[in-house]
Amino acid sequence: MFLHKKELFRPVQVDKPNPRFGQYLLEQFGGATGELTAACQYFVQSFHVDNPGIKDMLLDIAVEEFGHLEMVGRLIELHTKGVKPNIANDSPLFAARGKGPHFLDSLGVTWSASYINEGGDVVRDLRADIAAEAGARQTYEALVNMAPDEGSKKALVHLLTREIAHTNM
Amino acid sequence: MFLHKKELFRPVQVDKPNPRFGQYLLEQFGGATGELTAACQYFVQSFHVDNPGIKDMLLDIAVEEFGHLEMVGRLIELHTKGVKPNIANDSPLFAARGKGPHFLDSLGVTWSASYINEGGDVVRDLRADIAAEAGARQTYEALVNMAPDEGSKKALVHLLTREIAHTNM
Amino acid sequence: MFLHKKELFRPVQVDKPNPRFGQYLLEQFGGATGELTAACQYFVQSFHVDNPGIKDMLLDIAVEEFGHLEMVGRLIELHTKGVKPNIANDSPLFAARGKGPHFLDSLGVTWSASYINEGGDVVRDLRADIAAEAGARQTYEALVNMAPDEGSKKALVHLLTREIAHTNM
Amino acid sequence: MFLHKKELFRPVQVDKPNPRFGQYLLEQFGGATGELTAACQYFVQSFHVDNPGIKDMLLDIAVEEFGHLEMVGRLIELHTKGVKPNIANDSPLFAARGKGPHFLDSLGVTWSASYINEGGDVVRDLRADIAAEAGARQTYEALVNMAPDEGSKKALVHLLTREIAHTNM
Amino acid sequence: MFLHKKELFRPVQVDKPNPRFGQYLLEQFGGATGELTAACQYFVQSFHVDNPGIKDMLLDIAVEEFGHLEMVGRLIELHTKGVKPNIANDSPLFAARGKGPHFLDSLGVTWSASYINEGGDVVRDLRADIAAEAGARQTYEALVNMAPDEGSKKALVHLLTREIAHTNM
Amino acid sequence: MFLHKKELFRPVQVDKPNPRFGQYLLEQFGGATGELTAACQYFVQSFHVDNPGIKDMLLDIAVEEFGHLEMVGRLIELHTKGVKPNIANDSPLFAARGKGPHFLDSLGVTWSASYINEGGDVVRDLRADIAAEAGARQTYEALVNMAPDEGSKKALVHLLTREIAHTNM
Repeated sequence: MFLHKKELFRPVQVDKPNPRFGQYLLEQFGGATGELTAACQYFVQSFHVDNPGIKDMLLDIAVEEFGHLEMVGRLIELHTKGVKPNIANDSPLFAARGKGPHFLDSLGVTWSASYINEGGDVVRDLRADIAAEAGARQTYEALVNMAPDEGSKKALVHLLTREIAHTNM
Repeated sequence: MFLHKKELFRPVQVDKPNPRFGQYLLEQFGGATGELTAACQYFVQSFHVDNPGIKDMLLDIAVEEFGHLEMVGRLIELHTKGVKPNIANDSPLFAARGKGPHFLDSLGVTWSASYINEGGDVVRDLRADIAAEAGARQTYEALVNMAPDEGSKKALVHLLTREIAHTNM
Repeated sequence: MFLHKKELFRPVQVDKPNPRFGQYLLEQFGGATGELTAACQYFVQSFHVDNPGIKDMLLDIAVEEFGHLEMVGRLIELHTKGVKPNIANDSPLFAARGKGPHFLDSLGVTWSASYINEGGDVVRDLRADIAAEAGARQTYEALVNMAPDEGSKKALVHLLTREIAHTNM
Repeated sequence: MFLHKKELFRPVQVDKPNPRFGQYLLEQFGGATGELTAACQYFVQSFHVDNPGIKDMLLDIAVEEFGHLEMVGRLIELHTKGVKPNIANDSPLFAARGKGPHFLDSLGVTWSASYINEGGDVVRDLRADIAAEAGARQTYEALVNMAPDEGSKKALVHLLTREIAHTNM
Repeated sequence: MFLHKKELFRPVQVDKPNPRFGQYLLEQFGGATGELTAACQYFVQSFHVDNPGIKDMLLDIAVEEFGHLEMVGRLIELHTKGVKPNIANDSPLFAARGKGPHFLDSLGVTWSASYINEGGDVVRDLRADIAAEAGARQTYEALVNMAPDEGSKKALVHLLTREIAHTNM
Repeated sequence: MFLHKKELFRPVQVDKPNPRFGQYLLEQFGGATGELTAACQYFVQSFHVDNPGIKDMLLDIAVEEFGHLEMVGRLIELHTKGVKPNIANDSPLFAARGKGPHFLDSLGVTWSASYINEGGDVVRDLRADIAAEAGARQTYEALVNMAPDEGSKKALVHLLTREIAHTNM
């Protein structure tokens, strides 16, 4: 059973809305290396393993990744809402599809479960997780480099640090 | 922030594993009308609305739908694990991809976020939710008709009842 | 049996070709909320229902939506043809793929039948139609706001009005 | 502008409903080589060409292909409706998704506009059409071989003959 | 530059054609864990790295994986050709789409480059390769268990052994 | 069995890296009309035909097309590597996903085997090849028109000439 608390894992703040950067952030919301991929991958793997300790660990990480998804979603919300009507100049994506996050990557491609790597064997599943964390890490590093404000950068560095921690588990 | 409790929303029980029915159940795990669609649709919509009451309601339903996803996943786990090695006769899908749930529909098509309907406007979003509940309801009714055991049937009837409750909210 | 007349439902005119806006218009030609989705959804639903009155109504709307698809296609044709060779500066999409409409959305994602919501039950199908009209309406409103010329705006307002009429049927 | 008449291009008849064959027929309704691909390909190409004669020919064929789509849809309707409730034994697809046609191929994969080949040049477009007709023809021949009743066979042979006629245009 | 020799990496033999097993083998031809995924992943990664030794190693493995793809393709050819006309009873897929391999998985889903994990960093790329080999290995083990004849089994065991060798590089 | 030589079919040179043009070039690397489509289409068709002369010809062309894929990949590598860190201004795609080629088209859509046209019959397969070459040719012509430097233009003209040669075979 899932529960939800209103607080984010860690509060996020955006110093100045930047819809174009909001669009780049979609990469970690609805992109191949993003938090939905991570959350769904750990979640589905938890059904495949019988060892209760590993099952719990996988579920715990899944739940944390859903919380990260929420943080990235809030960042995107902050980068697109409260923006002047001429948002189309900066990001036609949000002008056409509405402000706030969508399950698309930064180029507008819809998220697909074919990004998930899992099945049949716990060793395979854990190797897939290490690879997925490496992908998430590379993308967060790219986004940190592109981040236009300190608030976004801090949030992304926090998320990057968590991916590294998962790899070490 | 998401939290997780080990208990399911409602305990589920399978009287006799039936991998073929396990495969049909994928329809509500990784299918177009399934619980991942519902959970992700309510979740992403919650970022689009400013009214705190509606925002909370959308998040509450999203969290419940994730819990339904978990129930369906457990049913699939029970229908495919503890099955003799010749599972390939009944369901080549689980023989090739591993037992337990996957984010596929009953025909093996990977889940896609293009199943989600949302964006730009709270009225549109709520209409999309009513339509999605109607789709989930139709699929649950079909699965209840196909269910080979009482345990599965009870779980599915419970889930069906919840979808009807959401439509009335 | 389908028939075709050369005249559009309503003549369309573009005051000044704007390939960038032509690309945004793809949203209603090959996008999730677009006219192909609407036309195919009503059309396929007409096979599911036995009541002749509802069957006819669904087919009538399908045929009208194909006509709307044609109007949007003509608008895109007018916004991309007769443009100087340096169209690549404004829209690399049309420079690479050719002028005129394609079954892509404004971000270049190919149209997929997973946008369609239908199946098994007339109540579900009609709810899906109400949701689809709400999505189309939201997208037309966004495009009206982005429209660079009066001719495009008029055509889009007409199409928007028709979607509202369908919802009231 | 599109119009519609209730009569099919040619009446179709099914001697005995066979849901499994109904599922194979999806290949020409929502499959890669099917009538939706053909209709949409000719339709979208008609916007790319300036020569009025070729434009008209492309539109005429598009309209005929939509009519073929309707015939295939009716065949699928006849093969799945009026079938006993245990349709799940023969075709879980229709049991789960509802009777009648869907924009899926015979293996349940949703139709995608990436099946369409078009763009930028009339010579390319016409070559793509010849290739598409060859694919449709091969699939109709396969279905004729698998057809369980004379009524279905006659309808498919008629459709096959029309594809050959288009290739010779 | 690529070159080709007629000989397979290792000759393959099928004792008795079995179209149903031929369909399962598609899992390693056009499936997520299959040889096309492996070959394309190593190939595209070779462009991302500047170290000539790693670049060569990635290309060498890519070329070997293309050779494995050819072996799996030949196996599928042998399991589907020379089969009586009533192949539709055993595998409607090959009856409808033609004998021999296709870039589909065993459930008919078309191969997609979203199965590939790569980008931006050599460490990430190598971790992705280890995960991919683990997936391929799990699938080969499943297929060995399902193999109906000694010839197929031998070929699959050989391919399985090669994946393990790559993981140890 | 495939082999590989380090030399390209024809050396390629880029006078001045241009990441934006590198992105357009993806059209022929991971796009619908690109070299992966061509190579995979000829390769898979070679398994369907029994005539040894046609089989060899199809394989020979497949191998050449893989070599063309490599040339396009090298061009993209040269247009994106050695570029200043502010590549995000010119192409957010490479900034987020890493430099060098990816199996995406110029709009970021992942390559899909549904671009391939093949199956069941050699006449159909050869017609599909003529159509595919016509598509590749149209795209190369568009890219030649957009090419910002002489080196890229020369390489693309060479590739264009080869497609025309294949059509005449």
